[in-house]
Amino acid sequence: MRFSQLLIPTLKEDPSEAEVVSHKLLLRAGYIRKLTSGSYTYLPMGLAAIRKVEQIVREEMNRAGAQELLMPMVQPADLWQESGRWQEYGKELIRLKDRHNRAFCLGPTHEEVITDLIRKNIHSYRQLPINLYQIQTKYRDEARPRFGLMRGREFIMKDGYSFDATDQGAEETYEKMKYAYHRIFSRCGLTFRAVDADSGSIGGSFSHEFMVLADTGEDTIVVCKSCSYAANMEKAICQKGNAPQDIALKEVERIETPGKRKVKVVCDFLQIKPSELVKTLVYIVKDEAIAVLLRGDHGVEDIKLANLLGVSDEDMRLADDKELFDATGTPSGYLGPMGLKIRVVADQEIGNMRNFTVGANEKNFHLQGVNMGRDFTPTLSGDIRKVTAEDRCVACGGKLELTKGIEVGHIFKLGTKYSEALKATFLDDQGDEIPFIMGCYGIGVSRVVAAAIEQHHDKDGIKLPVAIAPVQALVLNLSPKDEEISKAAQDIYGQLQRSHIEVILDDRDERPGIKFKDADLIGIPFRITVGKSFSKEGMIEVRRRTDGETVSIPLADTVATVMDLINKAGAELA
Amino acid sequence: MRFSQLLIPTLKEDPSEAEVVSHKLLLRAGYIRKLTSGSYTYLPMGLAAIRKVEQIVREEMNRAGAQELLMPMVQPADLWQESGRWQEYGKELIRLKDRHNRAFCLGPTHEEVITDLIRKNIHSYRQLPINLYQIQTKYRDEARPRFGLMRGREFIMKDGYSFDATDQGAEETYEKMKYAYHRIFSRCGLTFRAVDADSGSIGGSFSHEFMVLADTGEDTIVVCKSCSYAANMEKAICQKGNAPQDIALKEVERIETPGKRKVKVVCDFLQIKPSELVKTLVYIVKDEAIAVLLRGDHGVEDIKLANLLGVSDEDMRLADDKELFDATGTPSGYLGPMGLKIRVVADQEIGNMRNFTVGANEKNFHLQGVNMGRDFTPTLSGDIRKVTAEDRCVACGGKLELTKGIEVGHIFKLGTKYSEALKATFLDDQGDEIPFIMGCYGIGVSRVVAAAIEQHHDKDGIKLPVAIAPVQALVLNLSPKDEEISKAAQDIYGQLQRSHIEVILDDRDERPGIKFKDADLIGIPFRITVGKSFSKEGMIEVRRRTDGETVSIPLADTVATVMDLINKAGAELA
Repeated sequence: MRFSQLLIPTLKEDPSEAEVVSHKLLLRAGYIRKLTSGSYTYLPMGLAAIRKVEQIVREEMNRAGAQELLMPMVQPADLWQESGRWQEYGKELIRLKDRHNRAFCLGPTHEEVITDLIRKNIHSYRQLPINLYQIQTKYRDEARPRFGLMRGREFIMKDGYSFDATDQGAEETYEKMKYAYHRIFSRCGLTFRAVDADSGSIGGSFSHEFMVLADTGEDTIVVCKSCSYAANMEKAICQKGNAPQDIALKEVERIETPGKRKVKVVCDFLQIKPSELVKTLVYIVKDEAIAVLLRGDHGVEDIKLANLLGVSDEDMRLADDKELFDATGTPSGYLGPMGLKIRVVADQEIGNMRNFTVGANEKNFHLQGVNMGRDFTPTLSGDIRKVTAEDRCVACGGKLELTKGIEVGHIFKLGTKYSEALKATFLDDQGDEIPFIMGCYGIGVSRVVAAAIEQHHDKDGIKLPVAIAPVQALVLNLSPKDEEISKAAQDIYGQLQRSHIEVILDDRDERPGIKFKDADLIGIPFRITVGKSFSKEGMIEVRRRTDGETVSIPLADTVATVMDLINKAGAELA
Repeated sequence: MRFSQLLIPTLKEDPSEAEVVSHKLLLRAGYIRKLTSGSYTYLPMGLAAIRKVEQIVREEMNRAGAQELLMPMVQPADLWQESGRWQEYGKELIRLKDRHNRAFCLGPTHEEVITDLIRKNIHSYRQLPINLYQIQTKYRDEARPRFGLMRGREFIMKDGYSFDATDQGAEETYEKMKYAYHRIFSRCGLTFRAVDADSGSIGGSFSHEFMVLADTGEDTIVVCKSCSYAANMEKAICQKGNAPQDIALKEVERIETPGKRKVKVVCDFLQIKPSELVKTLVYIVKDEAIAVLLRGDHGVEDIKLANLLGVSDEDMRLADDKELFDATGTPSGYLGPMGLKIRVVADQEIGNMRNFTVGANEKNFHLQGVNMGRDFTPTLSGDIRKVTAEDRCVACGGKLELTKGIEVGHIFKLGTKYSEALKATFLDDQGDEIPFIMGCYGIGVSRVVAAAIEQHHDKDGIKLPVAIAPVQALVLNLSPKDEEISKAAQDIYGQLQRSHIEVILDDRDERPGIKFKDADLIGIPFRITVGKSFSKEGMIEVRRRTDGETVSIPLADTVATVMDLINKAGAELA
């Protein structure tokens, strides 16, 4: 490919629309262009990088025994009604009607379609296990698409589905997929962690997210510094505090706290620590106001709260001041659990607290010396708070660290959620008709490219690993008008092509400075420069983008050297 | 891949839903399964065949200097409003709204999106020509989806778009694409013709369709038996009849034809030939009734009529009897051009007729001795009829043949239709701002597989050419319980895999008859059987699916023989 004929519209300046580095660089390096909010055209360089990731995914899925198929993107509503998701799924699901007024959706995932396929075509345990996947453009109508390829509305996804005859078989398949995912993300050159995660709207018994560690990640993950424990914030747990043994229970005392509403202000006024206060929040959960108790220095983890209440987190939000007053008769800032008429959910830590402070359900008053069990009993109690860096690892007691991650993969043990809903059954070895045990396995293919750029870049541009870079080498002809230089550049380009190296020849009539800048920006792993030092000394410069290491070599050795470097760089990842 | 682990759900019986052979075989051989009307899941075998076609398309497009990119499938309405197609495009266009109530469509083609991309990123003739393509799932809400992959609603398409600075450049690009298309369909092993075609709703100055010749084709094409002339029925023209020189014009005579309404009945009654009668049809064109005159033995070609009237054929239909009567005051069967108050369109052949018969615009009466020009003057005249096998080639006067074809590709010289509408301009070498000259180039990738099966099958199943068959070889282990046979089968399978041959091992615990039947049905090009003759004489049977030719060879020679056969079969197409 000749640069002069390629559509690589590089930009000198950071585009104003981009916030995170991968978005900026994808635009600046001419990998993508925005069509509309959350939807991008993948230009030749962007698509080439995506295709590299796809191929790695395909190879590792096949190696793990999965088979590729392709299901329709437009799905009939009736299957979604069978699973119940037609009602459950929120606004992310694009619904549409055909010319006959029949309802369809743009499939954000394919559990229904694959379960329908399997129930119609697989009838015996002898045909199991079976593991199928596809690589497909998906559409989800995100509320706030952002960060370029990180959270788009239209994106490329690998989604896989497994069907097993037994629970044990399903768990073995799950482990195989977990291993395949480790291989995939390692081959893509990513630094990542597999973390315990919430199953969310997909459902199922357990799941892991694969998180690429990067400061710009949208997700917070909790990682133990001492052992292998890692979890998504939504799912992270920690050691419970111990119940204090020998503390005498005080009497409840009503104290005037005029105008003191915020935790910090009340604590300063009463000279207590936030960990000695219990705050009372009010959530609106499907039209019901519910009080939530939490230690003063803790935060609510919405997903945990939703799971405890058995609702979706989309059906739940903090009440505003008016709703809070309407539900409790008390202005915000003075609420407490004693005498509240609405349902009360307490974080499990409240049970380990003694003689704490709460609102008095009366303007300008708080209560001190309050104790759960003696003074009030919550409707529900459980772990509903966010883990903090001060907490201790649930597995080993070690120190925890909170870090940012980009979710690039998510695997679920689904169990029988979909097979039961769709009555997808087979005959087991006893002749009994039972539902398939399912798993599902996603990878955000286009997001992997963005995540890789978040991890692999510098101030000059993209530095993708050779395994997923759009092409492997770039030959710079620094003087297209110089016959000798052009011949040598053309020669190296031709030889590399014949050796099946993916290579671009920069044959543009541009200044060397622009060619160097573009080479760095686009981030081709190996840059081969034919310029003055070739005219003078017959030497070609080969530079590695990742660390800038440069060697000067004679023309005759160039191709062998480049191939050797590419192979070495590839081997490090394989 | 082991057959026992693959999802290849073959069927013994022809499914009732299928009419044409490719549809039947795609279902029976387990290549596809229907999800909903016009939408199919491509199972592993079907997808593998499609991927082969995709790869051939990709290689030939790249060879011709085109670059691959990928545009969003969901397109914003505003671009379609700029081009005017938001209003023009019929019900095939699926329109949808996002959560913010903004209008989008599922792109059936991408002229708007690519033109928008190019106007934003290409500004100078120095950056031209540029030729871009994508391979993508498209959705068109067909009125009558049918014939499996031949006319689906969701299908895989290659769509390409070129941008040139000059008209001459655009025509060179068009010729390059035409050549690439010839290479693509040849490599796919198809018998096809490139035919002159109508540009339809895409628009533009001229176009060619690539037609795979097959009896089940939905399109009729006209082919000259003597020269290279070939055209789609909608576009086909032929030699005009000569005006007869020495025929005296008769007087118009009113004749009673009681109850005689149909052409044949009137002709029999009056003892004339249908070629001596002019029939008068009435069309409703956008609410207007228009009379259409045609020689009695000719048929209207709707597209030609629509083009002559400057409307879309979707805005035009035959009037029913009531509409005809309301518009003319005459019952159907007795209509004629003399004295008609509505607009009259005459086929150009009417001008070459003398003393013909027409309806009298009065029940039970016809007129004889009528002549155009003297007795009536049509509002419009032109070529609006279907060519017949009795006509002569417009190019060489040779005999014409009407044959059926399946459209697998369509290339258009668009000119400036879209670049002008979207104000997509560049600076030419004179410094003038002018619109890009565009071309567009489509291939129905999934339809190619169906068309190939229409051409390559027998009563036992599919016989795809090796270039696009899902895999190249199938090893049959006829006795999975026999250790010696299983070892040999496994051995050949392993060696073929290591030699990069795509191979399936049929390791199923099934009777040999079932394995043979499935092998023929699925249509793997080379079948390698390890069975009794191996136990007895150490011989392996290698059979070619296309012609059933079978050789028996020793185990040691098997892999080399198979590789040789595959290479030879591939070379015939390359």
